[in-house]
Amino acid sequence: MKINENFLKIQNSYLFSMIAQKVSEFKEKNPEADVIRLGIGDVTRPLAPEVIKAMHSAVDEMAQESTFKGYPPAYGYDFLLNAINQNDFAPRGVKLDIDEIFVSDGAKSDAGNIGDIFSVDNKVAICDPIYPVYIDANVMAGRSGTLNDKNEWSNFVYLPCTAENNFLPELPKEHADLIYLCFPNNPTGMAISKEELKKWVDWANEHKSLILYDAAYEAYITEDLPHTIYEIEGAKTCAIEFRSFSKTAGFTGTRCAYTIVPKELVFDGVSLNKLWARRQGTKFNGVSYVTQKAAEAIYTPEGKKQVREVINYYLNNAKVIKSGLSGAGFRVWGGVNSPYIWLKTPEGMSSWDFFDALLSKANIVGTPGSGFGPAGEGFFRLTAFGSAERTAEAVERIKNLF
Amino acid sequence: MKINENFLKIQNSYLFSMIAQKVSEFKEKNPEADVIRLGIGDVTRPLAPEVIKAMHSAVDEMAQESTFKGYPPAYGYDFLLNAINQNDFAPRGVKLDIDEIFVSDGAKSDAGNIGDIFSVDNKVAICDPIYPVYIDANVMAGRSGTLNDKNEWSNFVYLPCTAENNFLPELPKEHADLIYLCFPNNPTGMAISKEELKKWVDWANEHKSLILYDAAYEAYITEDLPHTIYEIEGAKTCAIEFRSFSKTAGFTGTRCAYTIVPKELVFDGVSLNKLWARRQGTKFNGVSYVTQKAAEAIYTPEGKKQVREVINYYLNNAKVIKSGLSGAGFRVWGGVNSPYIWLKTPEGMSSWDFFDALLSKANIVGTPGSGFGPAGEGFFRLTAFGSAERTAEAVERIKNLF
Repeated sequence: MKINENFLKIQNSYLFSMIAQKVSEFKEKNPEADVIRLGIGDVTRPLAPEVIKAMHSAVDEMAQESTFKGYPPAYGYDFLLNAINQNDFAPRGVKLDIDEIFVSDGAKSDAGNIGDIFSVDNKVAICDPIYPVYIDANVMAGRSGTLNDKNEWSNFVYLPCTAENNFLPELPKEHADLIYLCFPNNPTGMAISKEELKKWVDWANEHKSLILYDAAYEAYITEDLPHTIYEIEGAKTCAIEFRSFSKTAGFTGTRCAYTIVPKELVFDGVSLNKLWARRQGTKFNGVSYVTQKAAEAIYTPEGKKQVREVINYYLNNAKVIKSGLSGAGFRVWGGVNSPYIWLKTPEGMSSWDFFDALLSKANIVGTPGSGFGPAGEGFFRLTAFGSAERTAEAVERIKNLF
Repeated sequence: MKINENFLKIQNSYLFSMIAQKVSEFKEKNPEADVIRLGIGDVTRPLAPEVIKAMHSAVDEMAQESTFKGYPPAYGYDFLLNAINQNDFAPRGVKLDIDEIFVSDGAKSDAGNIGDIFSVDNKVAICDPIYPVYIDANVMAGRSGTLNDKNEWSNFVYLPCTAENNFLPELPKEHADLIYLCFPNNPTGMAISKEELKKWVDWANEHKSLILYDAAYEAYITEDLPHTIYEIEGAKTCAIEFRSFSKTAGFTGTRCAYTIVPKELVFDGVSLNKLWARRQGTKFNGVSYVTQKAAEAIYTPEGKKQVREVINYYLNNAKVIKSGLSGAGFRVWGGVNSPYIWLKTPEGMSSWDFFDALLSKANIVGTPGSGFGPAGEGFFRLTAFGSAERTAEAVERIKNLF
């Protein structure tokens, strides 16, 4: 029996596991330290009351023979697909059929599993810095080539996002088949305008490339910017979109997301919608009824209001971090259309040196920018998902330290 | 952008989708028909009261900041891993570490996704008939070769399970790297003894092959037979086991399962446990807190009793079907350690002809044996997951028809 040797190329441990380990070692040596965690992008506010109500009611249905639900439909219950369509797309002028929407247990699963339907021979383009899952999933699948001493994979096309280009990548200078884009961006917190996104859609259509568009943070957009790539003309023939309830409605521990695969997406005469349907129908069995009822509840009038309040709460945290650090002389990006704040480390410190300093001297956990790719070196990510009080306290500590 | 062309080899539609379509066409033409569904293996009894109680309580925890849960641990909460270990393995003399247990959203997902960690070059052996997911997932991954006119894939090693060998496959006569075994079996309903299973474990160890053992139906075992492959000496160096709460506790609509990857499983010096951990850590994000609390509840004293009652209810249905059809002159297998009854079609009818006759003349839905593979031709599967009343009614109708 032969293993998939591509797995040997990637590091054994995931960025956030490394951080968790460093924090736990620190806490062991300093049990009295009051550590504030602004590292991993995990939410902290409870589920909305409407969601809780819907879950209780769905659990009660599972308790009665007459209302009990067995296997869910593989791609989602119609009630949720319709709610998604009518609330996330129709109001933005985007027309979808509900069989272009695939409900799943998470955007991470979808962004990883989508590779199943593509040839191993495709050339992958990624932004740098980037959410590590896109890279690791493609390394495992055999699309990466080898790692060079600059920490770059030989077969990937890198699209650097730097302070110079305001963290908006330039169009690829060489051919790329699969292009990963994420806006509002994780980790930089920067968003994209319709005009800029149109350039990518046009480039992809012209080069017969496919954009894998991660819009998991669209609910944090406060300015006049596209919430879905399908607001851009031509996107339906060149883009798959990943969406998630994790950051929209605090579902990180509830697990629900969805992916859009338009029927107009046809490559070599084959519909990607049908391929994804076959992949999910074979290697996935749908999302639990209780979870789908929970997701549906965020689209009720009351649910929308409650979910919006929580997003505004986190956005206010982002503002506090951004203005606090700005005032202290840091160069800071993001945080306006995103729960992420991206900052330049002071005095040319490396990302990990800054991580260590922040942890040991201010007892604050953030994420080293270099963990997101070579171009992230010298940068650092903070998240706005903590409590307001702890976030304000964290900002004070950083200001006092530097 | 190039698609994964292996997808073009498989049929567009899944067996159970074909059945659903035939039934829906029949109902459209015969709206007055009182159809009894004994086709798809989906449960019908509500969740156990202990499970319902645990879910309500977990939902309440998600409503409070102090007890709210964000991202679950990627491989399962310790409370569930410990409950699994202490109840499903320790009492059978099987010692596992909890990091050899990986909780997931379903055995179908795991059985499909496990292929990620193996080379495409492995030779796959499958029983015939077989649960279609094992085949389709390997076709998609490129391990199948081409389909011949006997409906067999050129690169697969087929292990026929027939009335002649009492539906227990013989050891492979040629080399196989990955061997899929499922006991109690879907679709035949037949179980395996320790002595027989030992032969497979020995063969796999000798040939450095890996057994992928599906034990999703172990809770239905009533005789003195192995519930887990790890009851067999030597299995930890040659077997991965898939387990599910779907049939054990009626979780088809709740979505929870687990997979055992022992640390002793080492191929080419590489630990499969680490590879699967990396795969799941990268392309999966854990199971919801509410669902894991639901699963934990089946291991409480009260929960065990309640879950056992439901299994006995289904087993009684199986008995009713088996003895009824036996008495009517059918040749019938399974149903003793399994919720599945496997029968020989009468008068040499093909599986699909029998399906059509049963649907049109008795308004009963079953599953054609040929849908599970070439050796299933001339056989038919009925499931015991209906209500007792409807099951008895179905048996009467079949007896009257033949």
